[in-house]
Amino acid sequence: MNTAETKIKKESINAVHELDSLFKPKSIAIIGASSKELSIGNVIIKNLVHYGYTGKIYPINPKEPEIRGIKAYTSIFDVPDNIDLAHVIIPNKFVPQIIEDCGKKGIKSVIINSAGFSEMGEEGIALQKAFLAKAKEYGVRIFGPNCQGIINTDPAFKAYCDFTFTFPEPGAISIAALSGGVGAFIMQSLFDLEIGMRMYASNGNACDISISDVLKYYGEDEGTKAIILYTEGFKNPREFMETAKSVSRKKPILAMKSGRTEAGAKAAASHTGSLAGVDIATELIFEKTGVLAFNNEEEMCQAAMAFATQPIPKGNRVGIITNTGGPAVIATDELVSAGLVLPPLSERAVTILKETQLPEATIGNPIDVVATGGGKHFRSALDVLMEEDTIDSIFINFVSAPFTDTDDVARNIVEVNKMKRKPIVCNFMTNMSIDRFKVTAKILKDGGVPCYSFPTTAAKALGALYKYHKVRSRNIGEAKIFADINKSKAAEILNSGFRNKDLGIKKNSTQIPNPESQILNPHFLTSDKVYSLLAAYGIPVADWRLADDVEKTIKAANEIGYPVVIKADAASLVHKSDLGGVAVNLKNSDEVRSVVENMKKKFDAEDLKFFVQKFLPGGRELIAGISAQRDLEPLIMFGIGGIYVEVLKDVVFKIAPVTEVEAEEMLSSIKASKLLDGVRGEKGIHKQSVIEIIQRLSQLVTDFPEIQEMDLNPIMAFEDKAFVVDARIKI
Amino acid sequence: MNTAETKIKKESINAVHELDSLFKPKSIAIIGASSKELSIGNVIIKNLVHYGYTGKIYPINPKEPEIRGIKAYTSIFDVPDNIDLAHVIIPNKFVPQIIEDCGKKGIKSVIINSAGFSEMGEEGIALQKAFLAKAKEYGVRIFGPNCQGIINTDPAFKAYCDFTFTFPEPGAISIAALSGGVGAFIMQSLFDLEIGMRMYASNGNACDISISDVLKYYGEDEGTKAIILYTEGFKNPREFMETAKSVSRKKPILAMKSGRTEAGAKAAASHTGSLAGVDIATELIFEKTGVLAFNNEEEMCQAAMAFATQPIPKGNRVGIITNTGGPAVIATDELVSAGLVLPPLSERAVTILKETQLPEATIGNPIDVVATGGGKHFRSALDVLMEEDTIDSIFINFVSAPFTDTDDVARNIVEVNKMKRKPIVCNFMTNMSIDRFKVTAKILKDGGVPCYSFPTTAAKALGALYKYHKVRSRNIGEAKIFADINKSKAAEILNSGFRNKDLGIKKNSTQIPNPESQILNPHFLTSDKVYSLLAAYGIPVADWRLADDVEKTIKAANEIGYPVVIKADAASLVHKSDLGGVAVNLKNSDEVRSVVENMKKKFDAEDLKFFVQKFLPGGRELIAGISAQRDLEPLIMFGIGGIYVEVLKDVVFKIAPVTEVEAEEMLSSIKASKLLDGVRGEKGIHKQSVIEIIQRLSQLVTDFPEIQEMDLNPIMAFEDKAFVVDARIKI
Repeated sequence: MNTAETKIKKESINAVHELDSLFKPKSIAIIGASSKELSIGNVIIKNLVHYGYTGKIYPINPKEPEIRGIKAYTSIFDVPDNIDLAHVIIPNKFVPQIIEDCGKKGIKSVIINSAGFSEMGEEGIALQKAFLAKAKEYGVRIFGPNCQGIINTDPAFKAYCDFTFTFPEPGAISIAALSGGVGAFIMQSLFDLEIGMRMYASNGNACDISISDVLKYYGEDEGTKAIILYTEGFKNPREFMETAKSVSRKKPILAMKSGRTEAGAKAAASHTGSLAGVDIATELIFEKTGVLAFNNEEEMCQAAMAFATQPIPKGNRVGIITNTGGPAVIATDELVSAGLVLPPLSERAVTILKETQLPEATIGNPIDVVATGGGKHFRSALDVLMEEDTIDSIFINFVSAPFTDTDDVARNIVEVNKMKRKPIVCNFMTNMSIDRFKVTAKILKDGGVPCYSFPTTAAKALGALYKYHKVRSRNIGEAKIFADINKSKAAEILNSGFRNKDLGIKKNSTQIPNPESQILNPHFLTSDKVYSLLAAYGIPVADWRLADDVEKTIKAANEIGYPVVIKADAASLVHKSDLGGVAVNLKNSDEVRSVVENMKKKFDAEDLKFFVQKFLPGGRELIAGISAQRDLEPLIMFGIGGIYVEVLKDVVFKIAPVTEVEAEEMLSSIKASKLLDGVRGEKGIHKQSVIEIIQRLSQLVTDFPEIQEMDLNPIMAFEDKAFVVDARIKI
Repeated sequence: MNTAETKIKKESINAVHELDSLFKPKSIAIIGASSKELSIGNVIIKNLVHYGYTGKIYPINPKEPEIRGIKAYTSIFDVPDNIDLAHVIIPNKFVPQIIEDCGKKGIKSVIINSAGFSEMGEEGIALQKAFLAKAKEYGVRIFGPNCQGIINTDPAFKAYCDFTFTFPEPGAISIAALSGGVGAFIMQSLFDLEIGMRMYASNGNACDISISDVLKYYGEDEGTKAIILYTEGFKNPREFMETAKSVSRKKPILAMKSGRTEAGAKAAASHTGSLAGVDIATELIFEKTGVLAFNNEEEMCQAAMAFATQPIPKGNRVGIITNTGGPAVIATDELVSAGLVLPPLSERAVTILKETQLPEATIGNPIDVVATGGGKHFRSALDVLMEEDTIDSIFINFVSAPFTDTDDVARNIVEVNKMKRKPIVCNFMTNMSIDRFKVTAKILKDGGVPCYSFPTTAAKALGALYKYHKVRSRNIGEAKIFADINKSKAAEILNSGFRNKDLGIKKNSTQIPNPESQILNPHFLTSDKVYSLLAAYGIPVADWRLADDVEKTIKAANEIGYPVVIKADAASLVHKSDLGGVAVNLKNSDEVRSVVENMKKKFDAEDLKFFVQKFLPGGRELIAGISAQRDLEPLIMFGIGGIYVEVLKDVVFKIAPVTEVEAEEMLSSIKASKLLDGVRGEKGIHKQSVIEIIQRLSQLVTDFPEIQEMDLNPIMAFEDKAFVVDARIKI
């Protein structure tokens, strides 16, 4: 058996995957095949033939007997064999009928290249619904519509089901791209970098088979070593998170999401209408699921070259070998910026290098073998760094100095690279129009050494490998489930919030509420409910009482002990503090009496009550909160209160449920995190208490998705404790 | 006359520049010419011949009669003609003698390629001094040593005085690079991008002809339209600033300085020892002189392509034309991040586009002409954007869709580009291994359209053009010279500071002071001197008196009016506040008495005095200060006091003298600048008072370079005024 046969055999042993009909089709019908050169229905057939598709091609055309020399059929029903996959390239209005036909013929997957669906207004949306209904009825999976298609470079298939113009060599990187334009230039970039590609998928409107489905498929594909992902948003962020989390454990996912600026998001919305609105928190989604995020597609492709050939470093310690000074300085700057360090060499290493390098060489890290250094000088430096326990990765600057045997240098780098013990990236500075150096470049390329033309570019690629090491070794653990909470009590409080008689609006009421009252009143819980809810979830609150007249308020204050805070409390009073509804640091019953009497005059709400709380001055003012997301768990926010939030926007977010590790990261990743440790002679705060508050808050909002907004503002943190002093909850 | 002749004639009309013998040599001697292939003394001759050098070549070699077929001479004295330029490629110890010979022969410039000088320890430094002395004696200008050399691509010269391996086409960009390794790959990058190059210079140890000299020469060279600069530090920052300021007004300087991280600076120091120590403030130098700074050399080269062909935009408003959705989203993100905006189209534009574009096109900004859009669709979009008053530049995404006449699209882009009315950059996404698209690419390239392979890369290039527009239009003005200052009084105070008898060390004393006492005591001025100095320069200080006993202190406090601050003052008391030497908010004479009596007990310094100052609570605590620099004016620092400085490092620097515009920029560029406008109901501060303090501070330290350190900390700023409350000055 030759290699191709072994491969086919192996594939056939694998369990059949639902999407195999899409990515590994044994026969393809082109519905809308055309004899017109440059038409999509012609180009796809041309591409399949040109690329060497190993299966059968069935052009479907009502008039032509053959297309590009291949027998054509009037209808799919005339095709004598089974069909795995169909391309659909016909006007939008005929698509529902064709999908029904495909179902009847037993076609498992359909790529709809045609446009004119959800991206084109009402009529298109209706057509998309119509064909999807047919697809569900017959169990046909739909890829697209308004899309490019897929490519599988596996020699067993060579399925080029796409109308693009780049014909990649087989490789280990698979691409999933929502935008065909971006997918195509990423594929082209891998081609230009001679990296090779495994599979490609660009699914346009993505009405059925999603980016997550593709990702899952790549995750299970043995030939895919790394994945490049481009998206402009997520239709179903939860599904994506689940998939990405499981796939990124197995192989690196390099991802870019555009539309990160407001103008960019607007541009994205105009060209894929379906995704508008679900544009938040992508960075957090990538972080939580272990996806490597890029903001620059060129950097992402350059990094992919390193991922395709190199092992992942075990740490952040890099050794540099260079034969020219300046580029090593530039590389050092970038490597250090990416979090790597350059440890000094061991005594043993220095001794060996002194014996083996030229006298003018610089022995250190970087090791400068100088421009006249040849293969043996590079080799001894490489061998030394491979043996150094304190070095995890190797960066090479190699300028093709005309007075050295550059091929010999390249061969030595390749020999060491083949051991795959530590990742190597190489900034190879040369003139590729000179034949001699082309040979050197080919030795490096064939030897699997990722080569770059700029030190910063090469350093960024190594930085990405290291970042994946960090991602893979970061274990955020599972979110803690606190057992001491009272979930049914919380449910009861929230339920009563909906039923508040004073508001005149019942839950599930069809009555349309006054929009203003809805914003200001119905959805905010009153203070007693807020604090009871927090208590039910074990979130510590400063000792409090609720009282409804002057004497009861004084009694409550006496019980709590002075000084106290008094807050006027009524459903209509949301911005209490601005309205003069808060009085702090009241030292005795006379002060309480005077304040309460004043408030009674000021606010004549029927449900007016007085919220009495212990007043504790000092401490660090913190805030935490949540922001509910459509189709995603809420975001948990943490920051330092006051101007830190208002002026410096110094807050961090994580997607709920937040684990203990993540809560710790929140405290340490705000810019002013040093304040929590204490500065200027102040004591630090009791971080563990705050970390627990964040986790309990996360559990509360995860358990009750009906909570739309929640601010714990401020949380007062002291040396030995922390508790919530004021809070707002909107349901 | 043909073009080359016209050029030569024109050159000869230009005034002869001192460095013409280096960049425009009519004859070159190669001292150390070698018949050994791949040796530098052979490669340089080979390169000169290969590149078509138009002048005479004189190999100098004591043994060989000819080298590479060119008659060789035993000594330069045997050469029958004048020699403009000599390469020196002989062992270091012979160099001083050879320079003397060159001087005697009347050679005007010498490129010393040989190494073994200041970069190689004591002996090398001595040799460098020796040949420099000879050079000065005979008026020979030295380029190098330990360097590559120069290249002039001007067809009148074709002087390839270098041993590198890239043979650039003539172009409009000149390169000045300290590191040959970096210079070479930048040149290679321009070559790969087919931009063309004007001149190249890499001057290694730069012992005589400096980067500034080269910059000045490029500035005066008509053929140079833009300059790329790479350095690892400045030998003479003042000279560089002066040159860069004048050159950047005439043409863009794109610059990168490496060694921006600590590890990078260390790597730089190890390979060019001479520059270590002068590594600060490069960013500020670039900012003050209008140099465009890059941290990424690939981005710098990509930007150079746009500078080589495009006009500078007149503003930040960009119009996007695209034939594919996703890349426009990516481009929008990057353009917006670079400070550009996408204005909506005018009604007129929309009307024209609706008539001229395909029905499926998106009319807006971006204009999506869709993948099936051809030359006429691109053209109408381009014409419309050229006419829009609200658009300053045009960004094109052009994917070479197989079903369009891509050449026609390219021709239309080129026709509009040739008008040079507004800058155009093009992200051309194609497969260059397909002949058809190679033709399209050539049309664009020959038409002067800068083409990139990634939307972000193209957008960054346009961002750089816009940044230069901003740099060129930023007029910081001249530093204000306040006339109401008392310079002689200030000089007297500073002079007395040096002569302080208590310290036992006189100015210019040869006695070596105790290092600790020098740090803690001698150089700090006492409070009365500090405040008198500030007063002499019109820097407002809270009303103060100095008293030396209890009764006088009480009298002073009575005069000033309560509440007051008392500070113990003595030469030995630097950290007063930590030692309990400061008491604030004293409300009456009893409190003053008690405090002063206590301080007298605590500090038994002979020179103990009591500094009485008005206490004014409230206000915003600011800080300003200076940091003296070796070979450069001091840096002026500004920030908000307290945790903003300590925890958030929220400070900004400018190089003195600071102009009013720069002082305003300092206030507006701190991260928490909003605090100065007032937040949370607080009033904003009187900015003009603070701006004036910064300018007066700048004038003071510019007038008196002996001031080493100076902190105005805090400056208290109020709604209507600002004054210094505490200050330290070290001389």
